[in-house]
Amino acid sequence: MTTAAYPLTTQEPYPHDQWWVAAYADELGRHLLARDILGEPVILYRTQAGAAVAVAGICPHRAFPLARGRLVGDALQCGYHGFEYGADGTCLRVPSQSGVPQKSSLRRYPVEEAGGLIWIWTGAPEKADPALLPDLGAIGLGREDWAVEQHPLATVEARYTLLIENLLDLSHVTFIHDKTIPGGEKVAAIPVSVIESPQSITVQRKGENLPLNPLLAMQFPDQQGPVHQHFDAEYLGPCLIRTGGAMVDAASGAPLGIQNYLHMITPASPTRLHYFVNTARDFGLDRPQLGDMQRGMGSRIQPEDIDAIESIERVLQSGATLPPEISARVDNGALKVRRRLEAQIRAEAG
Amino acid sequence: MTTAAYPLTTQEPYPHDQWWVAAYADELGRHLLARDILGEPVILYRTQAGAAVAVAGICPHRAFPLARGRLVGDALQCGYHGFEYGADGTCLRVPSQSGVPQKSSLRRYPVEEAGGLIWIWTGAPEKADPALLPDLGAIGLGREDWAVEQHPLATVEARYTLLIENLLDLSHVTFIHDKTIPGGEKVAAIPVSVIESPQSITVQRKGENLPLNPLLAMQFPDQQGPVHQHFDAEYLGPCLIRTGGAMVDAASGAPLGIQNYLHMITPASPTRLHYFVNTARDFGLDRPQLGDMQRGMGSRIQPEDIDAIESIERVLQSGATLPPEISARVDNGALKVRRRLEAQIRAEAG
Amino acid sequence: MTTAAYPLTTQEPYPHDQWWVAAYADELGRHLLARDILGEPVILYRTQAGAAVAVAGICPHRAFPLARGRLVGDALQCGYHGFEYGADGTCLRVPSQSGVPQKSSLRRYPVEEAGGLIWIWTGAPEKADPALLPDLGAIGLGREDWAVEQHPLATVEARYTLLIENLLDLSHVTFIHDKTIPGGEKVAAIPVSVIESPQSITVQRKGENLPLNPLLAMQFPDQQGPVHQHFDAEYLGPCLIRTGGAMVDAASGAPLGIQNYLHMITPASPTRLHYFVNTARDFGLDRPQLGDMQRGMGSRIQPEDIDAIESIERVLQSGATLPPEISARVDNGALKVRRRLEAQIRAEAG
Repeated sequence: MTTAAYPLTTQEPYPHDQWWVAAYADELGRHLLARDILGEPVILYRTQAGAAVAVAGICPHRAFPLARGRLVGDALQCGYHGFEYGADGTCLRVPSQSGVPQKSSLRRYPVEEAGGLIWIWTGAPEKADPALLPDLGAIGLGREDWAVEQHPLATVEARYTLLIENLLDLSHVTFIHDKTIPGGEKVAAIPVSVIESPQSITVQRKGENLPLNPLLAMQFPDQQGPVHQHFDAEYLGPCLIRTGGAMVDAASGAPLGIQNYLHMITPASPTRLHYFVNTARDFGLDRPQLGDMQRGMGSRIQPEDIDAIESIERVLQSGATLPPEISARVDNGALKVRRRLEAQIRAEAG
Repeated sequence: MTTAAYPLTTQEPYPHDQWWVAAYADELGRHLLARDILGEPVILYRTQAGAAVAVAGICPHRAFPLARGRLVGDALQCGYHGFEYGADGTCLRVPSQSGVPQKSSLRRYPVEEAGGLIWIWTGAPEKADPALLPDLGAIGLGREDWAVEQHPLATVEARYTLLIENLLDLSHVTFIHDKTIPGGEKVAAIPVSVIESPQSITVQRKGENLPLNPLLAMQFPDQQGPVHQHFDAEYLGPCLIRTGGAMVDAASGAPLGIQNYLHMITPASPTRLHYFVNTARDFGLDRPQLGDMQRGMGSRIQPEDIDAIESIERVLQSGATLPPEISARVDNGALKVRRRLEAQIRAEAG
Repeated sequence: MTTAAYPLTTQEPYPHDQWWVAAYADELGRHLLARDILGEPVILYRTQAGAAVAVAGICPHRAFPLARGRLVGDALQCGYHGFEYGADGTCLRVPSQSGVPQKSSLRRYPVEEAGGLIWIWTGAPEKADPALLPDLGAIGLGREDWAVEQHPLATVEARYTLLIENLLDLSHVTFIHDKTIPGGEKVAAIPVSVIESPQSITVQRKGENLPLNPLLAMQFPDQQGPVHQHFDAEYLGPCLIRTGGAMVDAASGAPLGIQNYLHMITPASPTRLHYFVNTARDFGLDRPQLGDMQRGMGSRIQPEDIDAIESIERVLQSGATLPPEISARVDNGALKVRRRLEAQIRAEAG
């Protein structure tokens, strides 16, 4: 491919000094979960007390994949020669001798469990501050007064930036999702504004006086008249993009509810990504069919996005010379995101 | 592999400033045909008026493969965000805005339709002169007084030069085609002469006083006595090799007819080629069974050549060190072709 | 991967100036056996008189794989244009001409047949001295007074050094072979001594006063009391490792017998190896069920070792950054072997 980190202009494909989602919280237990995170093989599990643990996935003794080991109490035992490592990575035992070799500990990654997600820090451990996690409560995660639906994890054969760009330019809805999101072209036609803050960049479309379509009618069965609806794409860092937004009664301005789609993106390698999706709403908590509907829509829509970006990834890997890139005005928000992400990567490089 | 363009001594694997076959004419229609040509993804289609069009296969907006788009009138619409490009490559519409971005046109390739083939020019467009097409009428294409059989396109996992070399040294017939071309060893034993002209290099075998074998008897049912038969391999550029040739009555010298095998070779990538084959004859136009026989023979013989050159390609890609190449006297014509092709590639490089 | 020849610190992955096993003797016959040896495609066969022949596997004429040729008497005929090469590699015939081109011979490899094995020398041919073969008689090969079982050849997707290291650190038995070698942890717990000689490095465990386990009881049905048993891992060069060893009656010191496991390792490429295994014993020659048992155990145990080293190879090829390597005291022998092998490779490089 022509540039390692297309569409970025950096050499490094991703920033390390930030939290990324490693797993859904319910994926972790008393078994070894192996997952590549930012190009590094990682083993995830829970201690007997339930704490989440993330350590390097390669035994420093003879490079055996620790995914093929097993848990012995809270320790991870290598499946080759039985070296045992504690939950903090310290080498505890080498079966063939008394004592352990010097410098034999395993790399341990800082982890945080929040919002039903396991967050991991692959950068400098001393910088791993829980205060740097995104404000999950603000988007509906980890709260009793919101309903959250967890969608199946998808591992996608595409660089993570392609998914970020996909989500920030929703003018693709008319073409990629023409069968699964009827009426999407009307949303795509709404003028866009871009709102920047230190924490986020939001590409915002405000739909005004929208007639009650079947989806709105199902979500708000008591609503009679038209609705104002936000169609946001909010970049909260490369790890998290929120789409969706608030709906209000057009006549009175009274809030009806918020429906968020939360896209957690984690690079697995320079050309592969993990795609975690939650939907969260602050209404109809007693109607589980709304959650079923969100999962059903996701099961149809997400494969279309995945298919699109995987086809771009194949182009990039084919070695074909890319034409000079052009952008439309609607790409303004996505281009701001690119610049911010590049600045983040460059700042880490020093 | 040791050298990118084996058996050439150039760095560049192919010349661009010449016509190559992109497709059989009847492959094109009101649908998108995606094909890699000289390493470039190309989209081929016909306008509503029937004109052949070839444009670049990657959208300059976000690198989406245009093969996944669709035709809107004569325009090509990208399947991702709906950018539309006219048949000349000009960007006509960006759905999310009025007007189009600057420099947003798609690369357009010159094409010519001749002899039942779509010819493409991937080099400098201002040099694309139809007068540079091979003289197709001289070999039986695009004429009412010849019968032409079109063989299925084969895409072969081998660099195109291996097929050129294969066709120019027919001494392989005895070994590769020993089951499908009985008696081939007698042809291989005929002394070879090499005839050079500015347009071609011909490796020529003149078979004299050949007894009527079953193939000749089927082609010329009225013939009684022996036949003089040409077994040519004529290089008409890297895109086109003619094998076969004229047959005459040995007693009188009266012409019986010409049977040509036309091999159109187009690199898809440095290690893959498209192989178009036509057979053409100027006799027995009213006997379609002769064409059926040619297609039948091709369906048995061509896979043997393809299998041979693909096995060489695997050797080249295995990384095995190649022994210093030796050549036989019969390779003289093929070596002249190599030198001419190298000179053509070097002349382009300046 | 981070270093081409991990775990070695050399650039070259293997030494050439030594004998390696190319095949079991009974694999060779009047057919072409193609095998990659130290990265080179080789063709092996027997002459009509039965002599083993090894020549290069690529025709110097047009790089055709000679594996697709055939034997004509003692000569090897290329399947493309019929070039014929004698058993000494000399080009004997080019069908399209009288005489043969200059410098047209095929590379011939020195071979020796010894101990039921075909040994090949890929280095400088003038250095190929049969006296440099390992002392096969000393380990039970090629002798009437020992019984030898030949195990199926396995071609393994791992660099050969991983298998050498595997065999020299038998503390893995407890973990990799916990189901197939019951009681292995008791053996692993025996203290290790390392014995060096110019020809070998032996990691030695001496089991003392071992109670008669079922395996010993089957091997020595007349034995009553406990046994002293050697568990050696003897490096006899990168091509050959012996494990197993002698057993004696603990009470009297009288020898019971020797059971050797002979591991012949040949690199196929920098990341692939051929694994030949023989077992050899000097007792119970009249009880073929002892050989059946050895083959049966091998069919269960060897796949476990292969699986382990292939999983390390995948780690190495994944591009994951390896942690700094640590070693245990029990690795002392394996580390001495590494240093000796590196010195051998460096000495060849000059």
